[in-house]
Amino acid sequence: MSTNTTPSNPADLEVTTGPLASGYKVYEAGSLFPELRVPFREIPLHPDSGEEPVRVYDTSGIYSDPNETIDISKGLPPLRESWIEGRGDVERYQGRDVTPLDNGVKMAEVGQIHAFPNVEPKPLRGKNGAAVTQYAYAKRGIITPEMEYVAIRENMKRSEIRDAVSKGESFGASIPEEITPEFVREEIARGRAIIPANINHPELEPMIIGRNFLVKINTNIGNSAVTSSIGEEVDKMVWSIRCGGDTLMDLSTGKHIHNTREWILRNCPVPVGTVPIYQALEKVDGVAEDLTWEIYRDTIIEQCEQGVDYVTVHAGVRLPYVPLTAKRVTGIVSRGGSIMAKWCLAHHRESFLYEHFEDLCEILKAYDVSFSLGDGLRPGCIADANDEAQFAELETLGELTKIAWKHEVQTMIEGPGHVPMHLIKENMDKQLECCHEAPFYTLGPLTTDIAPGYDHITSGIGAAMIGWYGTAMLCYVTPKEHLGLPNRDDVKTGVITYKIAAHAADLAKGHPAARVRDDALSRARFSFRWEDQFNLSLDPETARSFHDETLPAAGAKEAHFCSMCGPKFCSMAISEEIREYAKKGMEEMSQTFKEQGSKLYVEVGSEDTDQ
Amino acid sequence: MSTNTTPSNPADLEVTTGPLASGYKVYEAGSLFPELRVPFREIPLHPDSGEEPVRVYDTSGIYSDPNETIDISKGLPPLRESWIEGRGDVERYQGRDVTPLDNGVKMAEVGQIHAFPNVEPKPLRGKNGAAVTQYAYAKRGIITPEMEYVAIRENMKRSEIRDAVSKGESFGASIPEEITPEFVREEIARGRAIIPANINHPELEPMIIGRNFLVKINTNIGNSAVTSSIGEEVDKMVWSIRCGGDTLMDLSTGKHIHNTREWILRNCPVPVGTVPIYQALEKVDGVAEDLTWEIYRDTIIEQCEQGVDYVTVHAGVRLPYVPLTAKRVTGIVSRGGSIMAKWCLAHHRESFLYEHFEDLCEILKAYDVSFSLGDGLRPGCIADANDEAQFAELETLGELTKIAWKHEVQTMIEGPGHVPMHLIKENMDKQLECCHEAPFYTLGPLTTDIAPGYDHITSGIGAAMIGWYGTAMLCYVTPKEHLGLPNRDDVKTGVITYKIAAHAADLAKGHPAARVRDDALSRARFSFRWEDQFNLSLDPETARSFHDETLPAAGAKEAHFCSMCGPKFCSMAISEEIREYAKKGMEEMSQTFKEQGSKLYVEVGSEDTDQ
Repeated sequence: MSTNTTPSNPADLEVTTGPLASGYKVYEAGSLFPELRVPFREIPLHPDSGEEPVRVYDTSGIYSDPNETIDISKGLPPLRESWIEGRGDVERYQGRDVTPLDNGVKMAEVGQIHAFPNVEPKPLRGKNGAAVTQYAYAKRGIITPEMEYVAIRENMKRSEIRDAVSKGESFGASIPEEITPEFVREEIARGRAIIPANINHPELEPMIIGRNFLVKINTNIGNSAVTSSIGEEVDKMVWSIRCGGDTLMDLSTGKHIHNTREWILRNCPVPVGTVPIYQALEKVDGVAEDLTWEIYRDTIIEQCEQGVDYVTVHAGVRLPYVPLTAKRVTGIVSRGGSIMAKWCLAHHRESFLYEHFEDLCEILKAYDVSFSLGDGLRPGCIADANDEAQFAELETLGELTKIAWKHEVQTMIEGPGHVPMHLIKENMDKQLECCHEAPFYTLGPLTTDIAPGYDHITSGIGAAMIGWYGTAMLCYVTPKEHLGLPNRDDVKTGVITYKIAAHAADLAKGHPAARVRDDALSRARFSFRWEDQFNLSLDPETARSFHDETLPAAGAKEAHFCSMCGPKFCSMAISEEIREYAKKGMEEMSQTFKEQGSKLYVEVGSEDTDQ
Repeated sequence: MSTNTTPSNPADLEVTTGPLASGYKVYEAGSLFPELRVPFREIPLHPDSGEEPVRVYDTSGIYSDPNETIDISKGLPPLRESWIEGRGDVERYQGRDVTPLDNGVKMAEVGQIHAFPNVEPKPLRGKNGAAVTQYAYAKRGIITPEMEYVAIRENMKRSEIRDAVSKGESFGASIPEEITPEFVREEIARGRAIIPANINHPELEPMIIGRNFLVKINTNIGNSAVTSSIGEEVDKMVWSIRCGGDTLMDLSTGKHIHNTREWILRNCPVPVGTVPIYQALEKVDGVAEDLTWEIYRDTIIEQCEQGVDYVTVHAGVRLPYVPLTAKRVTGIVSRGGSIMAKWCLAHHRESFLYEHFEDLCEILKAYDVSFSLGDGLRPGCIADANDEAQFAELETLGELTKIAWKHEVQTMIEGPGHVPMHLIKENMDKQLECCHEAPFYTLGPLTTDIAPGYDHITSGIGAAMIGWYGTAMLCYVTPKEHLGLPNRDDVKTGVITYKIAAHAADLAKGHPAARVRDDALSRARFSFRWEDQFNLSLDPETARSFHDETLPAAGAKEAHFCSMCGPKFCSMAISEEIREYAKKGMEEMSQTFKEQGSKLYVEVGSEDTDQ
């Protein structure tokens, strides 16, 4: 196997910039905060269509703005800096020193690890450790720029397209016809939504995670002991957000964890999450039982100061639950969960994360770092789904949610995993009940275990369903799940699959703005506007290249037929003729037929049969 | 664009033969009919596991039997010939002459079209046109070899694995703990299942389609006016069944339709379906209004004599329903549906298929060709789902089902299409109600329109759900849907995606044998039996190659770690340790903790909060 190598200098990396494959970048200003520039992508349609451009959500940051210059060794502009400092409740202070151990290297190796060149030496925190969270502001009735930003971002002109709204089945969600900043504030104050946004990640373009908003997707990247370098991870981050990833988790476990994260954070316009126990474990050389609260606490502070927006904390893996997993087919599959389980067993005592949960809240609230309460006992196979261990932990996560809210820390809850279709709704319902409607953030779930190599699909099925039932954010799964580390193409496949799942969920929930894009694409398809069809799709390059494999000639993209039927024989063309007929009086003819129909033509169907 | 080319000689084609990527072929004999040799694949597991081989369903015919020799210019052995002739109710007769028009060529071109060299000159039919259908036998209480064959095939040792049975949610299906030949007979007699098996397709290995059996998948192939040759289509057929396709539709629309079909039928061990109106339309040079009942009838007889097992007939597209589609976003997207709609409008009269439906039944019953009643008015986009046109046609299909049953013709019903998740169950429920539980056979449905290039996934989501709700067979969708014709890789991707959907549905329905494979794979995963994990997967080659991309060394497949965590840090390994701990008395310890637990450790969680 390959071993750790010194990464090449990430500053040498050329990340992809320039407009996305279709459409152009637009910005919308705020009303309460006129200085806001909320990004969208608008996809123009062929002039013959007579249709307005279609506005879509845009996660790609300024990487897709041709008017911006990207220099990853400088990082993105600190968009939120003035909003954060303008609130007057934060202070800069001398942060902890970055040690070689933070990167898992010896002192002599420090020179090799390509530190980000422009690290802010003095991080921000709430004055006197006060809560500077969106939750705290929301509770006090304050609408922040972040709140108006996400309100505009979520609306996507929905007030102008009420006619297109179709009624879905939302299973008790409360999706409004228009998202107002006040609605955002209320949802955050109720704990039903979060805006993960560390005050030390000013580069962030705010986004919201909650059941009454668009379903979001998370992508995972991260180097590991086995392979991959800092540069690759930054490149995957850019790739992920250009494809549509809403948040990003850095799950690095090898060397250079601190520096990899710094490069990512300084260049990342979406919230970055981590699992701090991974880094803490590196600091004790991989020996779970050597972990201590002090090492973990120090790691948490390191990450809060650096700008991590949300942290997975497996505080629900309690000692009494560990034996419940012994008879499982696949035991504990969560890395964080198994570390904590091992620690609990080795020391024969309760988890230090559970015991120090209030201490954790005290730290996180001063940076507005959100909890992502980890499901360390999630099922790792169909056989273990919805078992006693899983649901015992979920109940504990509900308790912890209330404690986090008491400290005004934003909180979401992680969910499984591997669950057959008929048990998915039970998962969702139990989460809503136990966790008081705190946003659910699930990994898939995979609906069968038998397709390694295709687990983006086994899980995409479950993700669409649980998203419909109420999950706020779906953690993507790539084709390499269970088999290896995803490369850039795998990241893209995972993101697109999960964009499909999230969008299918939005449609089914009856999200007011969701169907606009489907309808525009379908009209383009019906009218043989091939370029519009490609441009409106989630992956225009792939759609175009698939079309060109069969019909490469440029003229074919103007043609009123496609490769499936050929020019002589085309159902879409025939349908257009029917529409023409219809205009010429078929409506009246239809009425006549309806009146006469059952008498004229049903002889054949009205005879009784022996069945 | 490319034009029709003379196909190369299909006999030169090397199709793939030899064992599948994992396991070996086994056959099981019948009890009622000891001469039956029902094929399975058995996947052996590593000796250390102490586990029996896992038996899986096998659609690949003798192509995967190393003891057999394949010669595609001879065709497969006529497995069912003695069963069919043994019933004493069929006769050979001089069939219709194959004309150049059947292949869409002029007389002078006939020499170029590579006829299959061993065409049976005298097809079979029921004596005096009598019904020789599995339905007719079932009604009379007769258990055929076909019925015992599928009973054995469906069981997959389920009687030996009752312990592994988990209870699913079957929405009113009646899945027994063991499939007996008598249960098969009852289901067929009730019209709830069909065994598509033309007496002129003796090469067929019987399979059953019904809600109380394993969910099946259909693949579509077919040359078109634009591209692809006979050889390519035969190759795709073999590819499809080796991946797991249960039935195959030949949707050819260009030249050489008759000969392509002959090559496919003579070499195909799974049921072959067609849409005869496609060929009929070729015979009138693509002008829908020139179609007549006589031309259609002649085409049906041509295909019945050749051995087609089921035919899509769009007899539910009635004249009064056509105007209902005029205001749709995408009108009529079914090719057959649009042809019939155009014919109805052009002649201002009722569909000849509807009016001659009883005549059609008279023909089909003499060959045991099954109806697949086409949904010519299925929605072509999310906006048109579950509309008046679609449901009007579905009600007519229910009427026609009763008529088909009166004539003892086996019948299934085709379904959509494009349907958002929240409207899928309504579709299924309405089909069960209108069509008296005749098997439902759906295309997807696609749950969003915005991902051309990924419609195997948009539709795989809907397919898994509707399969769970009760659909008996899922028609696959490839990544090229809406964009171009699938190549061999696209066929594979489509099949694997739909095997996932069908299996996820079986699991959710609580099919007794379904979970065996998931559990075996999950145990292999937990025990780091990498080769077992690959071999048990739906696509061993892909699983293995993905693993090798990250950890190519042979030793890594023996390693007790994977690339995600690396050797130092592995949740599966930790879980194994927990299991060891557990053996050493954790059970008792757990009991103690449970008794003490709530007092000892919940201080942090028991405090009240302000939310």
